[in-house]
Amino acid sequence: MQIEHPYLMFLGDAADQLAAKTAHGIVHWRRDWCLGQLRLPDCHADLGLPDMTIADAAAAGVRTLVIGVANRGGVVGENWIATMIAAIEAGMDIASGLHARVADLTEVNAAAAANGCRIFDVRHPDRSFDIGTGARRSGKRLLAVGTDCSVGKMYTALAVEQELSARGAKTDFRATGQTGIFIAGSGVSVDAVVSDFISGATEWLTPENDPDHWDIVEGQGSLFHPSYAGVTMGLVHGAQADALVLCHEPTRTHMRGLPHQALPDIATCIKGHLDAARLTNPNAQCVGIAINTSGMDSDQARAGLLKDLSAKYEMPAVDPVLDGVGAIADRLETI
Amino acid sequence: MQIEHPYLMFLGDAADQLAAKTAHGIVHWRRDWCLGQLRLPDCHADLGLPDMTIADAAAAGVRTLVIGVANRGGVVGENWIATMIAAIEAGMDIASGLHARVADLTEVNAAAAANGCRIFDVRHPDRSFDIGTGARRSGKRLLAVGTDCSVGKMYTALAVEQELSARGAKTDFRATGQTGIFIAGSGVSVDAVVSDFISGATEWLTPENDPDHWDIVEGQGSLFHPSYAGVTMGLVHGAQADALVLCHEPTRTHMRGLPHQALPDIATCIKGHLDAARLTNPNAQCVGIAINTSGMDSDQARAGLLKDLSAKYEMPAVDPVLDGVGAIADRLETI
Repeated sequence: MQIEHPYLMFLGDAADQLAAKTAHGIVHWRRDWCLGQLRLPDCHADLGLPDMTIADAAAAGVRTLVIGVANRGGVVGENWIATMIAAIEAGMDIASGLHARVADLTEVNAAAAANGCRIFDVRHPDRSFDIGTGARRSGKRLLAVGTDCSVGKMYTALAVEQELSARGAKTDFRATGQTGIFIAGSGVSVDAVVSDFISGATEWLTPENDPDHWDIVEGQGSLFHPSYAGVTMGLVHGAQADALVLCHEPTRTHMRGLPHQALPDIATCIKGHLDAARLTNPNAQCVGIAINTSGMDSDQARAGLLKDLSAKYEMPAVDPVLDGVGAIADRLETI
Repeated sequence: MQIEHPYLMFLGDAADQLAAKTAHGIVHWRRDWCLGQLRLPDCHADLGLPDMTIADAAAAGVRTLVIGVANRGGVVGENWIATMIAAIEAGMDIASGLHARVADLTEVNAAAAANGCRIFDVRHPDRSFDIGTGARRSGKRLLAVGTDCSVGKMYTALAVEQELSARGAKTDFRATGQTGIFIAGSGVSVDAVVSDFISGATEWLTPENDPDHWDIVEGQGSLFHPSYAGVTMGLVHGAQADALVLCHEPTRTHMRGLPHQALPDIATCIKGHLDAARLTNPNAQCVGIAINTSGMDSDQARAGLLKDLSAKYEMPAVDPVLDGVGAIADRLETI
């Protein structure tokens, strides 16, 4: 799976900006790849990109129509299908983050076959994997882990990759979820892999590399989230991480989606993920804490929290959005 | 999925007794359900059951032909297909533990449809599951965990279920792998579930029950096995276990299949599984250690090991095959 850019971002008839969250993430991290947006009547999302028709996009050299939007009612409407077919007939590939497979839409699939275009259903792995082995391989790896889901693991990983690149280091972002896959152009939705192969899929995604190369691996879930910890465990073992960054959202009152489930404290969470990581990499260490402080009341509270965490855990504690991740990258240079 | 018994055990052209390991397990635990065996020419396995033709078996009231054997070369031979079709035409269902799906064999599938018979491919879940929630539910649950794969988790769980049944307790064995499913007549191969749904599938398998009812849940893998720990983690969280039994094989020199991977020590292994279990059941406790001593040199060494373990961990340490699991059942009666 290698999704070619530039992209035309398809927003369909998105109900609101939140429905286009995936598309927003792609534009944030890969603005240069996103030439325009295509919105149907009654679309309430806007990426701030030029509006383009399929013909405009084809003329501008777009290679892929990206469906980075949650659709209303969970079914693909007729007007979406017509747009996809028009894109295919203009020579574009389709890359979709929908739960339902675009490749299962008979007309779209037939059009793709007839025009030699590809359909990427990024939530669904397009290959099988071997069982993981945990055998040591060369290259360095960082994995973002979290106290919960949706606490900034992808953002943090991308920020670290960007910072290391800017410093001239050899590095790749390794995507494990749909938005990350659009941003990287490739990757594996690990939560959709058959459970026997989670660590194996992660080993495949982060292969042997130069000794000074850093794979920056997007995390998923949390070892402390009862719904998803199996996925996280396989990812931790498969990534064979040298470095973990713990991500946290301090205003969260319970685990996402589970009002009865308390958040783990940070010390427990760091220790739990490190214990697991050391099964396949005895040298694993936690190199920083990334806090999403956007929900906090004041700059003073924010600064105080980061200072306290940094002192308590003797590692950088930053809000990647506001502070960058330079302090974490400094730590990586010592490994 | 509810596989009906009695069974006719199909051994095909098994290369040796080991190839019929699954069938042996079924006969050991459900001798009453197994009326006979059907062996093709050049079969080198023998379950010690009466040899039967399909016609014999039909006359004896067999409901299901069980394919509990690893086949040579991984492909289903023509002579296997003819036997399956004959069984279907005699009114039997087919239950298979093969990796490849019997339902994908066009002729067999057509015969089943024509005769109103069912095909159970027990390695493949026949339904979808919700995401796990970790919400507390009534009933008690025991989960067998292990220092490694293939250390006696299924045997231990079945022995505990048998002991509790004999004492008149309300109890069910909950199968999570192919042999267990044949023995229970139902269950879920959790390692074949999509990874997002491991804990959810386990919650479905071990539902709310009477407060004094024990689900005895077959374990899979180990939190310390880098290939399979994701499966184990989802199982531990989904089972919401009140009681764990740790299973161990003391002559194992490395994790199964991974010569580079050391076994965890028992203390670390108990603590790791308990820490994970307490995320969804804060009262989880380890109630016993089950040791497969069959590889040990002397009765003296065997007895010494069990005595030492029992003293060190202050819980029963038994070889379920030689000692039974009465001491573990005694502990369960106090929970």
